[in-house]
Amino acid sequence: MATPQTPDHLIILAEMGREEQVREAFERIHPADVAEVIDAIEEDDLRVGLFADLSTPRAAAVLSLVGDHARETILDQLSEHRLRAIVTSLESDDAADLLAELPRAQVERLLQSIPPRISADVRDLMRYEEDSAGGIMQREFVAVAAEASVEDAIEALRRRGADAEGLHNVFVVDADQRLVGSLPLRLLILADPRTTVGAIMEHDPISAHTGMDQEEVAGLFSKYDLVSLPVIEPTGQIVGRITVDDVVDVIEEEASEDIYRLAGLGQESSVLEPAFESIRKRLPWLILNLGTCTFSATVVALFEGTIQQLAIAAAFMTMVAGSGGNAGVQTLAIVVRGIALDELTFLNARRVVLKEFLTGAANGLALGIIAGVIAFLWKGVPIVGVVLATAILGNLCLAALVGVLIPLGLKWCGIDPAIASAVVLTAITDSCGFLLFLGLLTLCQPLL
Amino acid sequence: MATPQTPDHLIILAEMGREEQVREAFERIHPADVAEVIDAIEEDDLRVGLFADLSTPRAAAVLSLVGDHARETILDQLSEHRLRAIVTSLESDDAADLLAELPRAQVERLLQSIPPRISADVRDLMRYEEDSAGGIMQREFVAVAAEASVEDAIEALRRRGADAEGLHNVFVVDADQRLVGSLPLRLLILADPRTTVGAIMEHDPISAHTGMDQEEVAGLFSKYDLVSLPVIEPTGQIVGRITVDDVVDVIEEEASEDIYRLAGLGQESSVLEPAFESIRKRLPWLILNLGTCTFSATVVALFEGTIQQLAIAAAFMTMVAGSGGNAGVQTLAIVVRGIALDELTFLNARRVVLKEFLTGAANGLALGIIAGVIAFLWKGVPIVGVVLATAILGNLCLAALVGVLIPLGLKWCGIDPAIASAVVLTAITDSCGFLLFLGLLTLCQPLL
Repeated sequence: MATPQTPDHLIILAEMGREEQVREAFERIHPADVAEVIDAIEEDDLRVGLFADLSTPRAAAVLSLVGDHARETILDQLSEHRLRAIVTSLESDDAADLLAELPRAQVERLLQSIPPRISADVRDLMRYEEDSAGGIMQREFVAVAAEASVEDAIEALRRRGADAEGLHNVFVVDADQRLVGSLPLRLLILADPRTTVGAIMEHDPISAHTGMDQEEVAGLFSKYDLVSLPVIEPTGQIVGRITVDDVVDVIEEEASEDIYRLAGLGQESSVLEPAFESIRKRLPWLILNLGTCTFSATVVALFEGTIQQLAIAAAFMTMVAGSGGNAGVQTLAIVVRGIALDELTFLNARRVVLKEFLTGAANGLALGIIAGVIAFLWKGVPIVGVVLATAILGNLCLAALVGVLIPLGLKWCGIDPAIASAVVLTAITDSCGFLLFLGLLTLCQPLL
Repeated sequence: MATPQTPDHLIILAEMGREEQVREAFERIHPADVAEVIDAIEEDDLRVGLFADLSTPRAAAVLSLVGDHARETILDQLSEHRLRAIVTSLESDDAADLLAELPRAQVERLLQSIPPRISADVRDLMRYEEDSAGGIMQREFVAVAAEASVEDAIEALRRRGADAEGLHNVFVVDADQRLVGSLPLRLLILADPRTTVGAIMEHDPISAHTGMDQEEVAGLFSKYDLVSLPVIEPTGQIVGRITVDDVVDVIEEEASEDIYRLAGLGQESSVLEPAFESIRKRLPWLILNLGTCTFSATVVALFEGTIQQLAIAAAFMTMVAGSGGNAGVQTLAIVVRGIALDELTFLNARRVVLKEFLTGAANGLALGIIAGVIAFLWKGVPIVGVVLATAILGNLCLAALVGVLIPLGLKWCGIDPAIASAVVLTAITDSCGFLLFLGLLTLCQPLL
């Protein structure tokens, strides 16, 4: 068949049982498209069968691209022999990531049976934290001395051959392998072959320490518009390189994390995971939330007497809680995102806290007046309107402060601010909203 | 001063009035660091003054890197002469972005006074939608014929000179300027100078049409691990190129948008904008939210009689609404993110809807039982516990369906699914939660 086959088309073919056509297409299309089809196939046997027929380099690429669920089912069925071939053909960072998912004993067996040069790189990488620069870097890079000629640098590049895929810079090092410069391939092409590398290199290139958090690494790429970043040990020696494609994954992962945590979800979730996984991940947060709801319900229960007298208070109190929760989540989202994008620092924190409080107070005043008028028109009792307006104003001021101070406080303590889920915030705005409205109403009861 | 000065250090110096030191540092540090300091300065006059002293190429780079608020205040004070120099020294895409923020008449005057080659490129770019591939591409690229030799390609690269910054591929075109291949610089370096480009190029490179949405463009970069992407007209002619650094910005922007919309915020917000901006952007959502809260309050008001009889119902009903809202937002976040990352398509939508419903039902059952037991222990009336459990189960099933069907429905209609804010979702889970619990309780009143 000569027409190009889209992944969607192949998924339908696979589900119709026309595996031959899918197999044939799998050898022609981009590995990322193969991975998309493999991910979408629901039947484990069919997925494993299609994967088994891929050639080794293709299988290796696909295995490093598929989602967690597909990877697990494939790894479960993979022979040690095939796994060895796959690990050998992967780049060092992808190999290390793959091995991190296997049992320790199996990893040891594997590393002892592959070429020592590869296993040494992989072992090196596996020492670093998964979320650090060391954990996402790869060991494949080209480094030359500043005294080397442009011709030498090109020769060094040639020696790496296929390994140099995705290479955009040659790094320049001193006699102790310490990073001193960087040379974009563009400059290498345009230079006189006899020039020394040191004469045309960019000095003091931006670099990351092996222990730098991956979010900070992503920040460097985004701020300085990088395509690759050398990674150095605290002593200055270059040990690896991070490429922008891995950083794109990090940025998407961190953005998902921020969204999921705000929504009260564990940090790693996917729409494609099986139902029991979703239940297991979400239930703890829901139980926590039920706990906070129970707490705010006890606040309401304190005022049973008032509610018995004025049942409509039960309706109005939900408006106070709802407005506070919404305003607080707005602030929380802005602040968490501002910290993630490095716009909000401790230097400008005071200004932001003031601004958020002002915003909360102004919006609270506006909402309070609207709600108060609604309440007055609805029930004809002016004092209920005034109490509602006051409670909403108070709750929005509080919501703004909580929304900005919780993430800043977490950052101050060195904890990821994104953990400040909306669950915690609404627990506070609900309880305080109920307390403010019902408390004020109880105080004003003689006036009713 | 010889010690390296961090942006934070310079911000403090600027605020202490030691402008001379800041000015001096500004000529040495990376433009991205200058932009960070300029963004952080609170006083408009100081910001404009420091900017005025930058050399033109530096000023141009900084102006395309600062945030919206800083850019506006600087543009307000910029002479036509200086602006012309800045636009001339910018890359075409940055120049077009800058001009898009100026009044039409001023843009016309400017374009007529800069070199025609530059103004033609900028005019071309300004024709495209801001969020499309055409809108984010730049016109600077190098294209050669397939019959050209490697030597010719290098010569073409040399002619672009400084313009070729950030260039990673030479594109290969046919006689009609239609894209037929791509040649990474690495292959160009390693090839024999007399080989033809056609013999070593990568065929059928991945490309984007000028009209493709920027989110889809980002998807291509992320899926195929690209560093640059040729942009073509529907007729196949290459007209520009998108680089990964712009895509990193798009990914961060789109992630922010998803987070902000879920939180009930306009799509473009920043922690650094002035308070009146924040108030203006957030108040409409808060008023919408107050409207939905008022609606769910009227649902509560329907059951004033029941609440008068059993005031504790006002406490329990908030647990039903709170649990439903939390579970619904979990589903909403997962589904919106799944659509954004292209994991969720119409092909697997049926499976996801079923899975989410199952998850909602299972979690609803678990939460319902816990809440029912709490209610029974609290009040000692079994029927209240049973009603609470049933209402929570029902509300969580509904929340799951609403959380998955709203974004899918929006996608079906061609609307950005991220618009499905938590405000809309909680409006439904609140009203239905109150209705379910208070309605069931009213039905069971004879049994109390």
